[in-house]
Amino acid sequence: MADYGVTAPQGFVASATTAGIKVSGNPDMALVVNQGPEFSAAAVFTRNRVFAAPVKVSRENVEDGQIKAVLFNAGNANACNGVQGEKDARESVTHVAKNLGLQDSDIGVCSTGLIGELLPMDKLNAGIDQLTADGALGDNGTAAAKAIMTTDTVDKETVVFADGWTVGGMGKGVGMMAPSLATMLVCLTTDASITPEMAQTALSNATAVTFDTLDIDGSTSTNDTVFLLASGASGITPSQDDLNDAVYAACSDLAAKLQADAEGVTKRVSVTVTGTANNEQAINAARTVARDNLFKCAMFGSDPNWGRVLAAVGMADADMDPEKISVFFNDQAVCLDSTGAPGAREVDLSGADIAVRIDLGTGGDGEATVRTTDLSHSYVEINSAYST
Amino acid sequence: MADYGVTAPQGFVASATTAGIKVSGNPDMALVVNQGPEFSAAAVFTRNRVFAAPVKVSRENVEDGQIKAVLFNAGNANACNGVQGEKDARESVTHVAKNLGLQDSDIGVCSTGLIGELLPMDKLNAGIDQLTADGALGDNGTAAAKAIMTTDTVDKETVVFADGWTVGGMGKGVGMMAPSLATMLVCLTTDASITPEMAQTALSNATAVTFDTLDIDGSTSTNDTVFLLASGASGITPSQDDLNDAVYAACSDLAAKLQADAEGVTKRVSVTVTGTANNEQAINAARTVARDNLFKCAMFGSDPNWGRVLAAVGMADADMDPEKISVFFNDQAVCLDSTGAPGAREVDLSGADIAVRIDLGTGGDGEATVRTTDLSHSYVEINSAYST
Repeated sequence: MADYGVTAPQGFVASATTAGIKVSGNPDMALVVNQGPEFSAAAVFTRNRVFAAPVKVSRENVEDGQIKAVLFNAGNANACNGVQGEKDARESVTHVAKNLGLQDSDIGVCSTGLIGELLPMDKLNAGIDQLTADGALGDNGTAAAKAIMTTDTVDKETVVFADGWTVGGMGKGVGMMAPSLATMLVCLTTDASITPEMAQTALSNATAVTFDTLDIDGSTSTNDTVFLLASGASGITPSQDDLNDAVYAACSDLAAKLQADAEGVTKRVSVTVTGTANNEQAINAARTVARDNLFKCAMFGSDPNWGRVLAAVGMADADMDPEKISVFFNDQAVCLDSTGAPGAREVDLSGADIAVRIDLGTGGDGEATVRTTDLSHSYVEINSAYST
Repeated sequence: MADYGVTAPQGFVASATTAGIKVSGNPDMALVVNQGPEFSAAAVFTRNRVFAAPVKVSRENVEDGQIKAVLFNAGNANACNGVQGEKDARESVTHVAKNLGLQDSDIGVCSTGLIGELLPMDKLNAGIDQLTADGALGDNGTAAAKAIMTTDTVDKETVVFADGWTVGGMGKGVGMMAPSLATMLVCLTTDASITPEMAQTALSNATAVTFDTLDIDGSTSTNDTVFLLASGASGITPSQDDLNDAVYAACSDLAAKLQADAEGVTKRVSVTVTGTANNEQAINAARTVARDNLFKCAMFGSDPNWGRVLAAVGMADADMDPEKISVFFNDQAVCLDSTGAPGAREVDLSGADIAVRIDLGTGGDGEATVRTTDLSHSYVEINSAYST
């Protein structure tokens, strides 16, 4: 049992291997296995109507609230591969189930990488045999976290110690991050003894205010998947509130790590909107600003160009008083009543973290925060030559 | 009478001057005057709820369907300047009206440039006196077109010769281009004898399928304004259809010139969506793809990464059959039935123009095209240091 990551909670083992799917030759396959005694599972998937084959298969298999193992590969998303893609995803699930002595419906599958390329099934099947070979499965959470990286520069793990039970997790994701989760694969594990319903409630509540409010570039992946697996090995059944808190803490920590490692990021920007009729309007407005390229370029340039904030928020689907909008950069007022505040252009935004707060002036108590990044040269560089 | 631009139609004169509003020291003010005998006018303005003072004043003054002169300044948008900004806009209108012996309500006013800086009224008032000085007003359409440029690299004019009557125009705009017009000022002139209603019908129809479908960076300006002024000097009253056609042709030509000169553009990209239930869904889908940063970066890299097109369109507010989506780059199939087509990755996108066509597979006959550009290093460069 590790002190960090997916194998931190009791009842979980993992393995990782290099199957040759990544051109880099780095580890590219991982397996997380729940050894029980319980197997409650919950999941949240991308809302993109163009979703990958592994999403389709995992969605089916988690339907019954039970998942005993999740297979991961990086380097190939197995998305937009039509009938063959689905066939390949099912074949890999059957292979894992057979090697572990489980049913196909006990297996979850996650792929990340290039869209539109068929999986190299020979390599994938050889990798599955390595992941399930004698002695392969163990306290290997960190190795698994490294194996699911794509253009991530660091592996991302988390742990939350509760009262006699634990939540662990790993995640990956760097670009194509948008409202319907980031482009990411996340696997959370816990040794709490909980029902699938408790797990789904905790996971849905947590993702709504963590991964769903992480918006790096407005793009949404075909593969986004978050699993929560519960082994019950601690023998402790927490209250729903305690479970919600622990799962939220784990998701929030991983979301912050995804933001910090986003493609080409030089600034971590939080956009908070207040003064709306409700939280939904606040999040619409925060997302509109967080996605505005002119605003994001200004952040890259450490330019306190608050006019772009007003221009962006003015198009948001939210009620506002166009004469009473206020904007704060790092808590310094730069715009009051929709007009420049003294010294606004002298605000120092040279630091790596920028907090933008916008009050839309309706007097309502709606509030929401969206995490985003700046739009930098390296974002363009990385994303103008990804598939080639 | 010129053969091009706003002074091509009979009855129009213009002037331009350097008032010192632009830091560059280039010409930065212009005046377009309709000498009649008729003064029908129509206008379309930004839909941004945060709109500039000149938009507010121009909207009031065109209410009665009559505008006799339009004042332009570049270098300062007079946006987000609160009460003082509106006072300054009205003062400039009153000054022009007084010098020309007109009523305030006869004057339109347009500003473009940095948001949130007060207009230098001393310079502006001196400029107005120069624009209206003896001999200043004449066949100076091109000089006016140059004076309204901001980061435009070329001045933008157009002319459409109809059957005995003419439509001329000038425009500017390079960034912050989005659905509610581009970030742009456009002034169209015609010597046709038409009612304000005819003018508004022709202008609204034309902008809906030209400037409104130009989406460079998803941002929407606080100052977007398009004027159509009619002098009736030709004595000819065209049919509404003929007027619509000529105004559309003028707007389409200017929209193409705005796209070609967009900030940092290295590729001119058209995104056409077909196979939707109606045109509205097609434009929603085309706009979603045209705004997707990962797609735009791929275009910059001449990368036929059709997977990003599917990932982007999958989030669009449009009905689709996720299994039956087809994508074409420059008329070559790269994705059929949501799966890669043979040779898809070898498509040559090295040219400056890229036509992307997406069929959403519902069998509907909805269709729409959005013009956009790639996302390049220079876009980031230009926009990360605009106000500084």
